[in-house]
Amino acid sequence: MARRNGLFFVALLAALLLNEAVICLGGVTSRFIRLEEKAIDMPLNSDVFRVPHGYNAPQQVHITQGDYDGRAIIVSWVTPSEPGSKLVLYGKSPDKLTSHSSGIVLRYTFHNYTSGFIHHCRLHSLEYNTKYYYQVGVGQSPRTFWFTTPPEIGPDAPYVFGLIGDLGQSFDSNNTLSHYEANPGKGQSVLFVGDLSYADNYPLQDNNRWDTWGRFMERSTAYQPWIWTAGNHEIHFAPEIGETEPFKSYTSRFAVPYMSSGSTSPLWYSIRRASAHVIVLSSYSAYGKYTPQYKWLEAELPRVNRSETPWLIVLLHSPWYNSYNYHYMEGETMRVVFEAWFVKYKVDLVFSGHVHAYERSHRVSNIAYNITNGESAPVRDNSAPIYITIGDGGNLEGLATNMTEPQPEYSAFREASFGHAILDIKNRTHAHYSWHRNQDGVAAEADSIWIYNRVWNPVPEAE
Amino acid sequence: MARRNGLFFVALLAALLLNEAVICLGGVTSRFIRLEEKAIDMPLNSDVFRVPHGYNAPQQVHITQGDYDGRAIIVSWVTPSEPGSKLVLYGKSPDKLTSHSSGIVLRYTFHNYTSGFIHHCRLHSLEYNTKYYYQVGVGQSPRTFWFTTPPEIGPDAPYVFGLIGDLGQSFDSNNTLSHYEANPGKGQSVLFVGDLSYADNYPLQDNNRWDTWGRFMERSTAYQPWIWTAGNHEIHFAPEIGETEPFKSYTSRFAVPYMSSGSTSPLWYSIRRASAHVIVLSSYSAYGKYTPQYKWLEAELPRVNRSETPWLIVLLHSPWYNSYNYHYMEGETMRVVFEAWFVKYKVDLVFSGHVHAYERSHRVSNIAYNITNGESAPVRDNSAPIYITIGDGGNLEGLATNMTEPQPEYSAFREASFGHAILDIKNRTHAHYSWHRNQDGVAAEADSIWIYNRVWNPVPEAE
Repeated sequence: MARRNGLFFVALLAALLLNEAVICLGGVTSRFIRLEEKAIDMPLNSDVFRVPHGYNAPQQVHITQGDYDGRAIIVSWVTPSEPGSKLVLYGKSPDKLTSHSSGIVLRYTFHNYTSGFIHHCRLHSLEYNTKYYYQVGVGQSPRTFWFTTPPEIGPDAPYVFGLIGDLGQSFDSNNTLSHYEANPGKGQSVLFVGDLSYADNYPLQDNNRWDTWGRFMERSTAYQPWIWTAGNHEIHFAPEIGETEPFKSYTSRFAVPYMSSGSTSPLWYSIRRASAHVIVLSSYSAYGKYTPQYKWLEAELPRVNRSETPWLIVLLHSPWYNSYNYHYMEGETMRVVFEAWFVKYKVDLVFSGHVHAYERSHRVSNIAYNITNGESAPVRDNSAPIYITIGDGGNLEGLATNMTEPQPEYSAFREASFGHAILDIKNRTHAHYSWHRNQDGVAAEADSIWIYNRVWNPVPEAE
Repeated sequence: MARRNGLFFVALLAALLLNEAVICLGGVTSRFIRLEEKAIDMPLNSDVFRVPHGYNAPQQVHITQGDYDGRAIIVSWVTPSEPGSKLVLYGKSPDKLTSHSSGIVLRYTFHNYTSGFIHHCRLHSLEYNTKYYYQVGVGQSPRTFWFTTPPEIGPDAPYVFGLIGDLGQSFDSNNTLSHYEANPGKGQSVLFVGDLSYADNYPLQDNNRWDTWGRFMERSTAYQPWIWTAGNHEIHFAPEIGETEPFKSYTSRFAVPYMSSGSTSPLWYSIRRASAHVIVLSSYSAYGKYTPQYKWLEAELPRVNRSETPWLIVLLHSPWYNSYNYHYMEGETMRVVFEAWFVKYKVDLVFSGHVHAYERSHRVSNIAYNITNGESAPVRDNSAPIYITIGDGGNLEGLATNMTEPQPEYSAFREASFGHAILDIKNRTHAHYSWHRNQDGVAAEADSIWIYNRVWNPVPEAE
């Protein structure tokens, strides 16, 4: 204890000297100094938005996991002028794309916008741990990309996830993506916590900004699977212009393997990848008792096999533990329904976005309340998840800089900077987690912690 | 005060002598003794389920308000063998049905069930305070019914609403309906708080039990408008038999005037009737911030004009204040989103079902909580609604008899008996509310209270 107090004193002294952080009872509020600039969307003629060469060339190529266990990939792309081929050719060598799969093509309209021809094609029965090359635009303007399949499902299968949220298409978004790509931690797949393009911020919720976003992202999304979560900017509910079907643009463009996990909606589902079981929830769908999402999650949690996938990770857009003065308490309505389950099933980590900043919680729960006992407060709970807000991708709405004061006890670290995170799963007991602000060199960790698995190593993390 | 204490003592003595009620700090728990019998559904050959005579005769006739202000009616019916006429003939005399309107017809399937031909037809531009006769089955097997339009919208327009929930089609359901029909309070329209047929309790969620329910109810629903709220038994989510579209049976059968109030879904909407503004919400749809229901309610509440409609009433299925050990705290997820608005806009009354019993709250709110202040408890609030659970219609699932003890302070009166209620709006300041258990004579009030309008007479009610 004396040693910890000593360390605390050294940390406090360092913080004061560096004017960089204030350590409260609850945790650290970083006072990192940055240029307070407005995040501005990249203009339409930016090089990141350029259309690929060739008549009807496939664009906006993106891939995601295509099954429950990581032996399938869904390839999606858009052709602008005509449907073109529905085929994906693929193989282990770029010269021998000997396999093929045929997909579907669809279009949608949104007010005065009509989409291009959106393709979704599933490649299945892939081998684990294997690099595959694939071609789209077959017979017309072919383009070839590649991806690497994950290791076989197993309790000690190492894997590196990137974590990004609320990305948008500003200059800061581009910084975040570049920073992630250059991170020596080498993320193999991205867990994306919602709010993709921010097209809905444009007049008439201009869906052309979905196309620019797809082209911007292709340099990453065509090569590694991004696991998608829906945020509020995916709702695109605009009755004033006759658009009343929530999530139409998003679900038309982003296919996810929801049926593989028994879900009836692409807005909530799960995948298993290496040693991780990843559950994706929808903050903007019904989740009350008896609803489809509730019933799905109620059945899914007991299916999680921690002997096969020790790491139980949940993605949802609107955070349950957030101490910024933005979206404060918006997550309460979902928290009061599901939190007791997360503690019962020992969820390791919950990642959210929505708040445009970074925050990491201690392991806390707030499940004792029964209305008449007055016990409603977050308390330390070794069976509870760590909650991480990673909504700091850098979209045009700018940073959330205003925090509740004092920093509440549930909050371990918070900082209003754009960035991304890396979750490096080592084995069934240990994962190294780090957060990287855009202003630092790519190897710098602005926040980091060794995370101990809640089933195989359920001891408190060092703080 | 001495007089009130004296009255309290007399009431307590009476309760003890009669073994009928226990008065706690919070309120009254009635110990009314009844036969503890299981509620059993009426068999298919019951007379209440009989099919009307005549080839393809219209059946399951029901009406609801058809616009925002009560000058329209939607007439719905089912023809079993062929579509038949889409017309409704109507007029002020049964011999002179000189007006007509043409509707739509639809069918739906549910697993191995295919519905009859479901008709919905809107009669509009009706006169207020007028008795109309209407005929369906035109030219084939005509049947004639009648209804009376409400008084014009106005702050002192008197009106009598019936209140029924969780009705089902048991012998007890029939008792409740008969009791309502015979009530000398003469309800003019029913506010129904969800859970209609309980067809989903049958194997394969047998939708034939929707047809029996429709025939059973016709004796009331063909003659006065029932205002519908969706409950969990309307969800009919059954992925195991391929049925994944929530509310399909319900929304196919029950048309509501949701577009008149700017809603984009039949699951939430409002109507104005006489001096009441009635808001219907969906406990089983999304209601988080940014969702369609949230945005609709956010816009609707400021539209309420208490000078035209002083009485602001909300219907929703899953109660926010409930002290039974059934569905305890299920309403929390919606309460934490909307309760502050209900207090801000001074909602007079919130009616719910779901719990198969009766309960009336004091005016309480629980909106001080901010996570870190520990202030989470219902407190007396003169601007808050009275919450009434009226889920005691008598369905086959039986009574909820197990209560939390002691009775919490927010609960004013509770009793586990089947019954219905009457809300008799007298003018802009006063409404008389009474609850009627099925075991009593039709004029007996098992619970009653004069309710004072929150805008025009915002004083505490006598308790």
